[in-house]
Amino acid sequence: MSDRYIVGVDLGGTSINVGIVPYDGGTVLGMRSLPTDVPRGAKFVVDRMVRMIRAAMKDARREGDIPADGFLGIGIGSPGPLDRETGTVLETPNLGWRNFPLRDLIANAVGLTAVLDNDANCAALGEYWQGAGRNVRNLVAVTLGTGIGGGIVLDGRVYHGASDLAGEIGHMTIDSTGRKCKCGNYGCLEAYASGPAIAARAVEGLEAGATSLLPSLVDGDLSRLTAETVYEAIVTGDVYAKEVMRETAKFLGTGLANLINVLNPDMIVISGGVTRAGEHLLEPLRAEVRRRAFRKGFETCEIVVSELGGMAGVVGAAATFRVERCGGLR
Amino acid sequence: MSDRYIVGVDLGGTSINVGIVPYDGGTVLGMRSLPTDVPRGAKFVVDRMVRMIRAAMKDARREGDIPADGFLGIGIGSPGPLDRETGTVLETPNLGWRNFPLRDLIANAVGLTAVLDNDANCAALGEYWQGAGRNVRNLVAVTLGTGIGGGIVLDGRVYHGASDLAGEIGHMTIDSTGRKCKCGNYGCLEAYASGPAIAARAVEGLEAGATSLLPSLVDGDLSRLTAETVYEAIVTGDVYAKEVMRETAKFLGTGLANLINVLNPDMIVISGGVTRAGEHLLEPLRAEVRRRAFRKGFETCEIVVSELGGMAGVVGAAATFRVERCGGLR
Repeated sequence: MSDRYIVGVDLGGTSINVGIVPYDGGTVLGMRSLPTDVPRGAKFVVDRMVRMIRAAMKDARREGDIPADGFLGIGIGSPGPLDRETGTVLETPNLGWRNFPLRDLIANAVGLTAVLDNDANCAALGEYWQGAGRNVRNLVAVTLGTGIGGGIVLDGRVYHGASDLAGEIGHMTIDSTGRKCKCGNYGCLEAYASGPAIAARAVEGLEAGATSLLPSLVDGDLSRLTAETVYEAIVTGDVYAKEVMRETAKFLGTGLANLINVLNPDMIVISGGVTRAGEHLLEPLRAEVRRRAFRKGFETCEIVVSELGGMAGVVGAAATFRVERCGGLR
Repeated sequence: MSDRYIVGVDLGGTSINVGIVPYDGGTVLGMRSLPTDVPRGAKFVVDRMVRMIRAAMKDARREGDIPADGFLGIGIGSPGPLDRETGTVLETPNLGWRNFPLRDLIANAVGLTAVLDNDANCAALGEYWQGAGRNVRNLVAVTLGTGIGGGIVLDGRVYHGASDLAGEIGHMTIDSTGRKCKCGNYGCLEAYASGPAIAARAVEGLEAGATSLLPSLVDGDLSRLTAETVYEAIVTGDVYAKEVMRETAKFLGTGLANLINVLNPDMIVISGGVTRAGEHLLEPLRAEVRRRAFRKGFETCEIVVSELGGMAGVVGAAATFRVERCGGLR
């Protein structure tokens, strides 16, 4: 059993997850999750994080027979953009914070050293260390949710770029005169394949007269239709919903082919709600990537679903601490 | 004066360039250039390369007072794809070679150790070492010619990817239902902004009735119109030719914005014939990148024209040798 542990904290716009991760990997102890409750303000959120960390450490000490000095520090994953050097969250549409010194507030309150990186980077590093990417050198992790994020791991380290912005793969243009994106640009991948974009495309087709079970699943109120509704309809065999997913796969496949042609990774790990569509997504996705990427690049790149799922953030935040403060993972 | 030198060889589909590069950079000695004469066959091309290398070494020994043992080895840049480990050119549409052991043929004939990398990677490393990227850590070099190639330098080393295919940025999809590309895909950057694509778009507009000087520059034979013809017309103030270049800049800007959002580099260095259009290209190019990339990513990324120009291949091939065999450049 490991005698050194790292606290992993995964802060999201919806929930906070905290767990105690053994230095050498393996079972996470003291795992807990609570809503972020963003409207209650930054102080509330930080207090909740600190209480969760203390409680997780206490539970873990009991579960794992950990000595009081067995905790090396805290890794924190947060929505970005952020400044890793100062540990500051610069601006987060999902949290409404600006220039918020999250890392030091947590570190001082808990009494342990801490590191901060963005959630997508942490998730990518988590998959590399303990998840689907255990046996590869270079991977891109793509998170599909309200937005589309990405983390790039090259040779066991997160690639951050010149100003900590690398991996914004949701904002690759795949259709230069296409759909308007929330970022102000036109034709971003996110404008086609994020959760809200999938719902919007489904609604457009219905309004144009497509026959489907979908309206009945939202009592005829199309404004309530979400990407989840599309998966529900697929499960019941709805032909139109499957078509919407097939189109989603084509857009996403175009984006992943771009990543392969530029980065030639060993693996692309996708995660998020839309992956629940399983082979309804993956089969047409791989077919589109095969069509668009260079053959050798396609053949050397596994496209897989996250193994860590909701744990990727916590495990990856701990991995980030290990890389930054202890020199690496392998 | 340096007393150690590296032979730099830049093999292209059109010409072979050879020069003797001081280990610490600076003036290239014994520089020479000859046509590749591809139709005369691989043996002819290799013999010509070997003769050029011997002659360059001889000239350089005289010019630079170099001792007989002052040459460390040979760096060779070649069109790809290739296998760096075995020094083999796998398949090159421009040369018509397949599984050709170029590196060892040259090394054995000259009697010096050699390394092989693709021409775009060499050009990128050359700009990093001695050109526009002297003061940055991460850069992407984009070569605009018959095709659009790319080389990615991260922290002073070429990033090759899982199977030596990274940097195929000409084949990012920027318009998923767009123009057919030579690679078989639709909407690749190369299908809009390569030399032949610029000419094709210009011809389409003329055939649709655009008024321009262009037809008179090719004696009315539009099949003879090239990207060069478009620059010629711009110099004379032709409004339609300027419009063709502005559109080229928009497509190219979309591609560069994708690179910035994914890789967040310190610098993008562009090279090739089309850069002769100068501010007719650069001004609308930067404007389009500003529109599409994240602001901070745009602000931290200089977009510049190559400083080494036609020398990038030779200098970069020597730099590749230095990185592979002598541990790095800075």
